Amino acid sequence: MKVVKFGGSSLASATQLEKVLNIVKADTDRKFVVVSAPGKRNAEDTKVTDALIKYYKHYVAEKDVTKDQDWIIQRYQDIADELQLDGRVMENIKATVLELATLPIKDNPFLYDTFLASGEDNNAKLIAQYFNENGLNAIYMHPKDAGITVTNEPSNAQIIPSSYDTIEKLSELDEVIVIPGFFGVTQDNHICTFSRGGSDITGSIVAAGVKADLYENFTDVDGIFSAHPGIVHNPNSIKELTYREMRELAYAGFTVLHDEALIPAYRGRIPLVIKNTNNPSHPGTRIVLTHSNTQQPVVGISADDGFSSINISKYLMNREIGFGRRVLQILEELNIGFEHMPTGIDDMSVVVRDRELTPIKEEEILRQLTHKMEVDKAEIERDLSILMVVGEHMKDQIGVTAKAAKALSDNDINIEMISQGSSEVSILFVIKTAQKNEAIRALYTTFFE
Amino acid sequence: MKVVKFGGSSLASATQLEKVLNIVKADTDRKFVVVSAPGKRNAEDTKVTDALIKYYKHYVAEKDVTKDQDWIIQRYQDIADELQLDGRVMENIKATVLELATLPIKDNPFLYDTFLASGEDNNAKLIAQYFNENGLNAIYMHPKDAGITVTNEPSNAQIIPSSYDTIEKLSELDEVIVIPGFFGVTQDNHICTFSRGGSDITGSIVAAGVKADLYENFTDVDGIFSAHPGIVHNPNSIKELTYREMRELAYAGFTVLHDEALIPAYRGRIPLVIKNTNNPSHPGTRIVLTHSNTQQPVVGISADDGFSSINISKYLMNREIGFGRRVLQILEELNIGFEHMPTGIDDMSVVVRDRELTPIKEEEILRQLTHKMEVDKAEIERDLSILMVVGEHMKDQIGVTAKAAKALSDNDINIEMISQGSSEVSILFVIKTAQKNEAIRALYTTFFE
Repeated sequence: MKVVKFGGSSLASATQLEKVLNIVKADTDRKFVVVSAPGKRNAEDTKVTDALIKYYKHYVAEKDVTKDQDWIIQRYQDIADELQLDGRVMENIKATVLELATLPIKDNPFLYDTFLASGEDNNAKLIAQYFNENGLNAIYMHPKDAGITVTNEPSNAQIIPSSYDTIEKLSELDEVIVIPGFFGVTQDNHICTFSRGGSDITGSIVAAGVKADLYENFTDVDGIFSAHPGIVHNPNSIKELTYREMRELAYAGFTVLHDEALIPAYRGRIPLVIKNTNNPSHPGTRIVLTHSNTQQPVVGISADDGFSSINISKYLMNREIGFGRRVLQILEELNIGFEHMPTGIDDMSVVVRDRELTPIKEEEILRQLTHKMEVDKAEIERDLSILMVVGEHMKDQIGVTAKAAKALSDNDINIEMISQGSSEVSILFVIKTAQKNEAIRALYTTFFE
Repeated sequence: MKVVKFGGSSLASATQLEKVLNIVKADTDRKFVVVSAPGKRNAEDTKVTDALIKYYKHYVAEKDVTKDQDWIIQRYQDIADELQLDGRVMENIKATVLELATLPIKDNPFLYDTFLASGEDNNAKLIAQYFNENGLNAIYMHPKDAGITVTNEPSNAQIIPSSYDTIEKLSELDEVIVIPGFFGVTQDNHICTFSRGGSDITGSIVAAGVKADLYENFTDVDGIFSAHPGIVHNPNSIKELTYREMRELAYAGFTVLHDEALIPAYRGRIPLVIKNTNNPSHPGTRIVLTHSNTQQPVVGISADDGFSSINISKYLMNREIGFGRRVLQILEELNIGFEHMPTGIDDMSVVVRDRELTPIKEEEILRQLTHKMEVDKAEIERDLSILMVVGEHMKDQIGVTAKAAKALSDNDINIEMISQGSSEVSILFVIKTAQKNEAIRALYTTFFE
């Protein structure tokens, strides 16, 4: 049994929906179809979700919303017309879109979520109807009926663990089940959307709930590339990634799937594949718990900007039990998460995200380091990037670090810091942001060409 | 003005004392001479300090101490005879040695310290007399008279900061001042010895007190070697080291001077030189605050055994603000200092000294990590060594890391972890202990041959 999720660009037009139909038909194991709202048909187009945000804003500002309603309804109508669907589904969609403008504005913390979720919800209705009229025994299912029960946190819903037991029962149904992504229903019957990762989370939750053999996530790319295609010309796509490798790559700039979306699938030990709706015969990138066979040591190179380092020196620092912990405590009390902490003997660097380091917090940190911790020197270094060489099989091969460090030095890139722990899923270099792209290309050439 | 300190092997015999006399005479700036107790004359010999420990043990056990007293007195007598010293100094030394066996045993926490300190004290008297009879205007000075006032902690004396002002006045005297090392006097007039570093600490304190231009520490080697001579055949001695480089090297196995002994000199910004009594024309190793000129990037390679690593994995670890701090807190509550903490995204390794990780503490750490921190995996890796490539000028040169990592991989040495902070005084590799010597040789060959 497979759960299949389609993103907005896979559902933007009749042409795309035909591809989706063929994909679902091609494999009878594809029993659960999770859908996004219609995406852009071309670069100038508007996503339905963005149109819904505008509609919401005009409604709460008590402006005229007719144009917003018309545009949204017409968007679905265009698809329905092209697909020559039975008129009843559009009656339902139209009513739902208009009804939004009758909901209470005051004391309704779920109003925004309800507007937005309708984009996915209406699309699911339309697609279930399309499937039904084209040879698939399909039903639309609202998240409430599917059992996707979530916490009471508008725009930040969390799945309630007991939901999985309810969702599991769906596997007893015979039909292909079309579920709108991006939202669940609270115990008080409010529509509540997930934060980041949107429909991917729904797919992940359903896959974990029904204990799917595979969660297929259809996008518009042939999987995950081993380096950013904007920096490296025509990079390889990765055949197989472990969840841990995916996390490491996602940390430093890879954003095909948001890693929070992966948690339910990861916890449920469900393998995942990222495939291309426009090229479904391409094997895509599989995300698995453990590698199926010995791969090349490095699976990907990623890098992310926006880091700073707090560099601290104190003579005899390493004799002070609790020194490192107290430095981290200062940051924690200022609500700053630390990313890495490479240490020498009498010095340490604490790498943090720039965005967490406001001028006021920066001043406070330096003040406390100087006065409370009595350090000899404390300074902030800015404009740093984290560069990661990722691959679980690196630990089986001697010399990956040497190869990476040599590639960087051969290209005159100075390594500001290194952190490599025993797990060796990744080697992490801190470099100056100005040298980031050059560094990625140097490492890609070394490990993939 | 220079402070000169001689170690036990430089003071073991008349032959050695003649060298010492010539060294002091050769430079009229050598105004302060700090001395240890007589060391071994040959491999089978007993150090005076060890003889005093035996004497102390017999005395407190109320056994016959005559033989102990005789041996110690004879030891000084032999030197005095060879140097043909005036008999009065031996009268004084003899009386002092015998007097130890009249001191109260009960309620005397300073008894052990008083026994031990007499080794240095009597040697200083003898040496001052020898200097005087051989053309130097020298006086013996007890630490009480010198103003070396310390805290009331037997065998762990700490200098009281106001002492420095008293010590400073010594610079007004005309004579060469011979001061016994290793102990100070409490405000209640008790003899109290320093913990580790012994006479080196006294030299360092006097140098800081009189604001010496140089602290010369005479040993029996031509300075500090760039790698351990037991592992690398005939290594170079280092011309110049910064205090920070010295600390890094001392951390991982270099023990020419104990780093605690350096603190007063470091704080007083006094440059230090380690020289060889048996080869005084050799320039030795200077220890300075900042390098005088651009040196080669790497000054030394050191390594130390006896480390373990606590390896922790948890999916989404890096999203938890305070995770790292809480792990360190668990260790701190068990009174375990951490050495290094290289981090990936969802994993971290905490490197600790083996000796701090008792089986009970180990079990408690794993229990808390599993139950309190809910980690996915926690395990202890043993038999690790820390390997350090040290040099302040590394940061000016791209490619040192690459060179070091390549040397290791070319010799099939797997790098378990790396930590390199922004200060870049050192690059720290964690490797398996079984590969330590091979790793040192590989790095020495790369950077020094």
